[in-house]
Amino acid sequence: MPDYAAIKKELEGIAVEDNPALVRQKSRDFFWYSPILKAQLENVTGDLVVSPTSEEEVIHTLRVAYAHGAPVTPRGAGTGNYGQAMPLSGGIILNLAGMDKIKSIQPGKVVCEPGVIIAQLDKQTKAHSGQELRFHPSTAQTATIGGFIAGGSGGVGSITWGGLRDLGNILRLRVVTMEAEPQVLDLTGWDLQKVSHAYGTNGIITEVEMPLAPAYDWVDVLVGYDDFMDAVRFSDALSHMNGLLLKEVAPVAAPIPYDYFTRHKPYLRDRGQSVVVIMIAPHAMDPFAAFVAQQKGEILFRSDMVESMKGIPHAYELAWNHTTLRALKVDPTFTYLQVQYPSPDHVAKVGKLVEIFGDEVPGHLEFIRFDAAIQCAGLPLVRYTSEARLEEIIRIHEDNGCPIFNPHRYTLEEGGMKQTDRTQLAFKQQTDPKGLLNPGKMIAWDNPDFDFNAGKNYLFPGLAAMGV
Amino acid sequence: MPDYAAIKKELEGIAVEDNPALVRQKSRDFFWYSPILKAQLENVTGDLVVSPTSEEEVIHTLRVAYAHGAPVTPRGAGTGNYGQAMPLSGGIILNLAGMDKIKSIQPGKVVCEPGVIIAQLDKQTKAHSGQELRFHPSTAQTATIGGFIAGGSGGVGSITWGGLRDLGNILRLRVVTMEAEPQVLDLTGWDLQKVSHAYGTNGIITEVEMPLAPAYDWVDVLVGYDDFMDAVRFSDALSHMNGLLLKEVAPVAAPIPYDYFTRHKPYLRDRGQSVVVIMIAPHAMDPFAAFVAQQKGEILFRSDMVESMKGIPHAYELAWNHTTLRALKVDPTFTYLQVQYPSPDHVAKVGKLVEIFGDEVPGHLEFIRFDAAIQCAGLPLVRYTSEARLEEIIRIHEDNGCPIFNPHRYTLEEGGMKQTDRTQLAFKQQTDPKGLLNPGKMIAWDNPDFDFNAGKNYLFPGLAAMGV
Ligand SMILES: Cc1cc2nc3c(=O)[nH]c(=O)nc-3n(C[C@@H](O)[C@@H](O)[C@H](O)COP(=O)(O)OP(=O)(O)OC[C@H]3O[C@@H](n4cnc5c(N)ncnc54)[C@H](O)[C@@H]3O)c2cc1C
Ligand SMILES: Cc1cc2nc3c(=O)[nH]c(=O)nc-3n(C[C@@H](O)[C@@H](O)[C@H](O)COP(=O)(O)OP(=O)(O)OC[C@H]3O[C@@H](n4cnc5c(N)ncnc54)[C@H](O)[C@@H]3O)c2cc1C
Repeated sequence: MPDYAAIKKELEGIAVEDNPALVRQKSRDFFWYSPILKAQLENVTGDLVVSPTSEEEVIHTLRVAYAHGAPVTPRGAGTGNYGQAMPLSGGIILNLAGMDKIKSIQPGKVVCEPGVIIAQLDKQTKAHSGQELRFHPSTAQTATIGGFIAGGSGGVGSITWGGLRDLGNILRLRVVTMEAEPQVLDLTGWDLQKVSHAYGTNGIITEVEMPLAPAYDWVDVLVGYDDFMDAVRFSDALSHMNGLLLKEVAPVAAPIPYDYFTRHKPYLRDRGQSVVVIMIAPHAMDPFAAFVAQQKGEILFRSDMVESMKGIPHAYELAWNHTTLRALKVDPTFTYLQVQYPSPDHVAKVGKLVEIFGDEVPGHLEFIRFDAAIQCAGLPLVRYTSEARLEEIIRIHEDNGCPIFNPHRYTLEEGGMKQTDRTQLAFKQQTDPKGLLNPGKMIAWDNPDFDFNAGKNYLFPGLAAMGV
Repeated sequence: MPDYAAIKKELEGIAVEDNPALVRQKSRDFFWYSPILKAQLENVTGDLVVSPTSEEEVIHTLRVAYAHGAPVTPRGAGTGNYGQAMPLSGGIILNLAGMDKIKSIQPGKVVCEPGVIIAQLDKQTKAHSGQELRFHPSTAQTATIGGFIAGGSGGVGSITWGGLRDLGNILRLRVVTMEAEPQVLDLTGWDLQKVSHAYGTNGIITEVEMPLAPAYDWVDVLVGYDDFMDAVRFSDALSHMNGLLLKEVAPVAAPIPYDYFTRHKPYLRDRGQSVVVIMIAPHAMDPFAAFVAQQKGEILFRSDMVESMKGIPHAYELAWNHTTLRALKVDPTFTYLQVQYPSPDHVAKVGKLVEIFGDEVPGHLEFIRFDAAIQCAGLPLVRYTSEARLEEIIRIHEDNGCPIFNPHRYTLEEGGMKQTDRTQLAFKQQTDPKGLLNPGKMIAWDNPDFDFNAGKNYLFPGLAAMGV
C-alpha cells in the first residue's frame, strides 16, 4: 500500500483532496448504466484526488506516484459509461478538469488543454472564426475533450466525418509518460493510436490539437414514421444524399420517443410514432424538405420554426447514449447494447433483429460514415430481465452477423477491440513499466493468456482488494 | 429566316453585335476537343450576339426573339466541350458574361448572377467569410457559374460533395422562360432538375443560389508510383479516409504527366512515373504524409514546400478536362472518353481496361463521391486513329460493364442521359413552346422516335442549313 500521507506531502503546491466522500464522488462515472457493471464496481474508490493545473504539475504528480508505486487514473468529467475512469486499484484520481486553456485557433484546427468542456470549446471556436469540432459526444455540455479522446469513439458529426479512430480526426496529442522521470511526447500520424481510446492506460494527455469544421446554426428536426423500418430506410437514404450537409441522423423506435422524449412529446401524434432525430445545416433545409416529402416522411419538429427553444433540449441530447439515459431515468430496468450492422446490407440486418426481438429490444440506430461508406451503429435499448437473457440477446445478434461492442465490460478489449492492440501494449511496456496507469483496464497487460473465446467475463484481480 | 435587322432595332438599348467575325467567335466553344464534333460543327455560327446586363434586358430579348421566331442560345464563357453553347440553327447568342454581380454572401450560401467567373466568385466569398463553392470545374479561371450549372456536372471538390445532380448542391435558380410574355420562375428542390444540366434548352438562368463550403489554402500534392494501378489503388484508399479533407484525387497514367505536365515535369523522376494529382486541406498534411508513407507512395511535389509557385499552374489545372487539354495542345491526335466504373469493383474494372488497351488509352481517373459511395469516373486519353476505332473502344468499355458518357456528341441524351429526361421535356413544352432555346440539343424534342439502340449518331436536321 503506497504511503499516501507522504505522497500528499510531496505534492505540496498542487490541489489534493483526501476527504473519502469527495474522493469517492470523483471515483465514479456512468458505470451504473449497466446493471452488470453496477454490481461489479459499486465499491470502487480512489485514495486521493489530485487536480493539476499545468503540465508541470502533471509531470511532478506522475514522478511522485511512480516513486511510491501508486496507481494513477486520469479523469475528465467522468461521463464515461463503462467505468473507464474508475480506479480499480484505488490510488490517485488525476482530475484534469482544471487544465482548460484554449491555446490557439487557426483555420481548420484548435490547440487546447485536455480539461476543456467540449461545448465550451465549440463556443469559443465558433465565436472566434465560425468553426467547431468535427464531431462531439452527446455529452458535449459536460464532457472534456481529453476524456472524449481517451474514452470515446465518435458522435454528433460522425455521419459526415467518421470517428476518432480515423486518421486525421485527431491531429496531435501531447502526453506525459509514467516513468521515474516522466517524458513528454508529441504524437502525430499513426502514433496517435497508441494513446487515443486507451482509457488513459498509456499516458496522460496534456494538450490536444484537433481539426475543425465550419460551425453552422444546425437545425434540429424530428421526422416521424408509423413503422420503425420505414424510419430506418429513410435514414439510410438521407445519409446517402451527398449534397445535404448533415450532423446527426438517428432513428429511434416507438414507443421510446413518446414515452421518454418528454419535451418533444407534444410534437408527436401518438405513441406509435418512430422518430428520426436529425441535425442539418440551415442552408440545406429547402432541399431537405423536398426530400422528406418525396420519402413520405412527416416533419414533426423543426427548431427553426418553433417560437422558443426554451426548455427544449438539443436534438443531440436525444441521441447517442442520451437516448438510453432518457429511458433509464424514467424506467431503471432499461439497459442497452452497442451493435455494429456491417454494410452494405445493414438495413436488412436491422430488420431481422427488429423482427426477432420486437419491443424487448427497442431499436435506436446512429448513422455514421465508416471508411467512407454509410453504415449504422446501434444503441438499442434492452428491457433487462437477467444477465443470462442479456448474454443470449448478445449471442443472437452475433449469430445474425452483427458484432456487439459490449458496454457491460470495463476492459478495453471486451468493450470493443476483442483482441489485444499490440501497438498500445508495446507502448505501455515502454512508457508505464510498472503498469500504474488505470490498472485493470487492459487485459493484455494483466493476463496475456486470457481466453476471449471462453465466453468468460474478465475480472481484474485487483478488484478483490476493493471488497467486490 | 427571322428578320435580324428588325430584331436589332427592337433591342435598342441592349448591347448587340452583328459583325460576322465577332459573332462567329462567340458561336464556338471547345467542341474541337473531339475530332468528330470538330468535323460536324466547324461551320456553325449565330446571327447576332446580344449581351444583356440585367434580368429586364434578358426578358426583353426573349420577348423580341419569341415574336420573331428567332433561336436563342445562351452562353457563359464558352468553355463547354461538346458544342453545348453552339447555335445549331444560328440566331441569337445570348451572352450572359456581363451579368456578373454577387448579390449576397451568407454562412453556407451565396446568391449571384450567372455570368460571374467561378474563380472570382470563390475569391469574393473567401475574402468575405472564408467560404468558397463546394466544387468547381477545372476551368474555374474562365468559366461562368451559370454555364457550369447549365452545361457542367462536377469537378474539383466532387470527391467530398458529389456533383451538380445531387439535391442540395444547387439551392435555387431563377429562370426566364421563352414565351410571348416571358415568366420569371424561382426553382428549388426537385424542380431544379428541369433546368440544371439542360444546356440552356429550358430557360435562361438569371440568378443562382449556391451552397458554400469552408475555403482553405488547399495544398497541391503530386504522389508518384511506378505502376499506374498502384496509383489507382492508393487513390481509392485515400478517398476512403474520412478524416482527411480532400478536394481532388486524380491518378494519371505514365507517360502523360512527364510528357505534358510541363511545369511539374522537373519534379518527376522519369517518364515511367504515374502521378496522383491531389488537393488537400493544409491541416490534413501531417496525417496525409503518414498515410502516403504507409502506402509506399512517393511525394513528388507539395505546393506548401516549393519556394515559389510562380509559373506553376494550380493542381486542378492538371486534372479533369485540363489533363486532356494539356496533351491535346502538344499532340493534336489525342482525344478522350468519359467513362463510369461502377463501384464497388471500380478498381478491378479500371485494371481490366488498362490491360486491354495499354498505351493506346492512357488512364486518367477522377475519384468522386456518388450517392455517398467512393467511385471513380474516367477521362482516359485516347490516341485517336479513326472514328471506327473510337467506336470500338467505346464498345469494349461497355462490354466490360463501364458505361460511356460520350463526349463526341452534342445532344443532352447521347452525352449522358441515354434516355429522355421526361421532366426536362415536359417543362420545355410549357416554357419554350416554339422550341427556340438552343435548338438541336434535346433529341426528345426534335425526334421523339429516335432509336438510341440503333447505334446511330443523331444529326440535327437544322445543321444542314449551316452547310454541314
Ligand atoms: C449520456 C451519455 C452519452 C454519451 N454519448 C457519447 C457519444 O456520443 N460518443 C462517445 O464517444 N461517447 C459517449 N459517451 C461516453 C463518454 O466517452 C463521453 O461522454 C466522453 O467522451 C467522456 O468524456 P469525460 O471527460 O467525461 O471523460 P472521463 O469519463 O472522465 O474519462 C474517459 C476515459 O478517458 C481517460 N482520460 C480522461 N482524461 C484523460 C487525459 N487527459 N489523459 C488520458 N486519459 C484521460 C479516463 O481515465 C477514462 O478512461 C456518453 C456517455 C453518457 C453518459
Ligand atoms: C479544359 C476544360 C476543362 C473542363 N473541366 C470541367 C470540369 O471539371 N467539370 C465540368 O463539369 N465541366 C468541365 N468542362 C466543361 C464546361 O462545362 C465547364 O468548363 C463550364 O462549366 C462551362 O462554363 P461556361 O461559362 O464556359 O459555359 P458555356 O460553355 O458558355 O455554356 C455551357 C452550357 O450552358 C448554357 N448556358 C450558359 N449560360 C447559361 C445561362 N445563364 N442560362 C442557361 N443556360 C446557360 C449554354 O448554352 C451551354 O449549353 C471543362 C471544359 C474544358 C474545356
